[in-house]
Amino acid sequence: MLKEFQEAIEKEINSLTFQKPGELYEPILYIMQLGGKRLRPLLCLLSYNLFAQEWKKILKPALALEIFHNFTLMHDDIMDNAPIRRGKQTIHKKWNSNVGILSGDVMLVKAYEHFTTVEGKYLLSVLNSFNKCATRVCEGQQMDMNFETQPAVSEKNYLSMIEKKTAALLGFSMELGGILGGQNSEVTEKLYNYGRNLGLAFQLKDDLLDVFGDEQFGKQSGGDIISNKKTFLLIKVLQKASGTDRKTLLYWLDQKEFDSEEKVKEVKAIYTRLKIREEAESRINGYFDLATENLRYFKANKNAWELLFSFTGNLKSREK
Amino acid sequence: MLKEFQEAIEKEINSLTFQKPGELYEPILYIMQLGGKRLRPLLCLLSYNLFAQEWKKILKPALALEIFHNFTLMHDDIMDNAPIRRGKQTIHKKWNSNVGILSGDVMLVKAYEHFTTVEGKYLLSVLNSFNKCATRVCEGQQMDMNFETQPAVSEKNYLSMIEKKTAALLGFSMELGGILGGQNSEVTEKLYNYGRNLGLAFQLKDDLLDVFGDEQFGKQSGGDIISNKKTFLLIKVLQKASGTDRKTLLYWLDQKEFDSEEKVKEVKAIYTRLKIREEAESRINGYFDLATENLRYFKANKNAWELLFSFTGNLKSREK
Repeated sequence: MLKEFQEAIEKEINSLTFQKPGELYEPILYIMQLGGKRLRPLLCLLSYNLFAQEWKKILKPALALEIFHNFTLMHDDIMDNAPIRRGKQTIHKKWNSNVGILSGDVMLVKAYEHFTTVEGKYLLSVLNSFNKCATRVCEGQQMDMNFETQPAVSEKNYLSMIEKKTAALLGFSMELGGILGGQNSEVTEKLYNYGRNLGLAFQLKDDLLDVFGDEQFGKQSGGDIISNKKTFLLIKVLQKASGTDRKTLLYWLDQKEFDSEEKVKEVKAIYTRLKIREEAESRINGYFDLATENLRYFKANKNAWELLFSFTGNLKSREK
Repeated sequence: MLKEFQEAIEKEINSLTFQKPGELYEPILYIMQLGGKRLRPLLCLLSYNLFAQEWKKILKPALALEIFHNFTLMHDDIMDNAPIRRGKQTIHKKWNSNVGILSGDVMLVKAYEHFTTVEGKYLLSVLNSFNKCATRVCEGQQMDMNFETQPAVSEKNYLSMIEKKTAALLGFSMELGGILGGQNSEVTEKLYNYGRNLGLAFQLKDDLLDVFGDEQFGKQSGGDIISNKKTFLLIKVLQKASGTDRKTLLYWLDQKEFDSEEKVKEVKAIYTRLKIREEAESRINGYFDLATENLRYFKANKNAWELLFSFTGNLKSREK
């Protein structure tokens, strides 16, 4: 079933076509075809599947989630001046920033176009939730950028940032499946909370894999350490480190020019010594538990529930 | 009545409030309060006024037009690297490009939020028309950017560009008033065509005023000539100029360093000699005539029609 969902999503992506001008539309096809887990449309289908069978009817709004997500990646990459995305050149590197800005803009419109295909009785509710979600995603990106120039970021603010930037869209992806499955707000709230907690777990796991993952799925290995990115790990280690560890850490944070490999090795050693990895893992497991807690409510539909439950398990144990 | 509309629109703009983070929302308030004619919401109210009285009920969707328009200005200014907008610093100059990109993104979401407040029975129709319009606006901006690096632009392609970049939104502004006034597509099409032709006239008039206007409403005087912008005037003069005029023209187009005042004076002299101004004016009047032609259909509602008719006249005779 999961495979069927995945194939249908890819087929839907491959059927996207646009007219001229090419400078506007080619980057959309390019970024959409870079691959990825297609997590958001998948969650939407898995969620809908708890309540109804005709998931083929909701492929367009499910795809809207993926289009919106890729719109945020396109603009974020410009803002972060990131050269590489999924092992390939980012849009603004392959073309230029202006192309990235404008193609992104039209992607957001295309996302709305796809949402607009939902059954009329759900349209307002879908749009209201999506508008709220999209606003939160932008707010999260702004917070993330603000963090770069702030001397210190609290754990609370970091979690609030990833809640907006990442978790809100996973929450809405689940919620959308529920709305389109005809569920009331009591139910869709549980679905949202599943997705939200999954999103928090997912982002913290990303932070962890950036440092401790074997493969770095196209990203620079240890890139967060190299760039002093204020991730959960760095915030935690700054809470805990004292004495020599703290000195070493601050030394590396302060260096403008350094050997990247050496910096990663040294900072990673401190993470290991202070059990930051374990701390992160325990937090990640906590969010996964909170997520699945919200799933219990849907156990009645055994097959669909099991599918979602095992999917969650796969995300929990992913190593890249 | 017009004044009442204008005051209500300004009041609605001034009542916009947003939460944190400030970096995301301050630029929105800043650009929305830079002023301007508020042409798009005004057209929407004037259009609605042809069919119904309760225009206060549609202030939010009318404002969505102004929010969307200002979103395009914010992003266009980044892409054009424009330092000044309505006599004030542009967003990316006052803050930076990243702020401009992200604030713009959230503005587009806020525009949709405002559209979503329409009566349920009109929601789908409003969104379908708006999505089409927003797509055209992005396509127009892309064409406009492409023109910059193309050696020559045909009159046809130029008109197609301004049709998308400018006229489509004025068309939709009128259409929106009709949809919300309960009119069918036969009627809303006429409204759209009024707005579309008004938009074409409006943009050509902008081109003309940039060269021949007395005041330049915050823009650099003769800026289009200085930057070799492929406006209707330049396209026309390149069609008509021969001999010494053509040589002089190509000389100025080719100079990398020059005295701006001298260039403007010399090119303007050729425009005058070859009656480019008259050519543009005749075209502008033609579009204004086509616009008002579409209005005839609505003469029955005498007061509302007269209001719109005289408003069109004001736009026709504007000198800035």
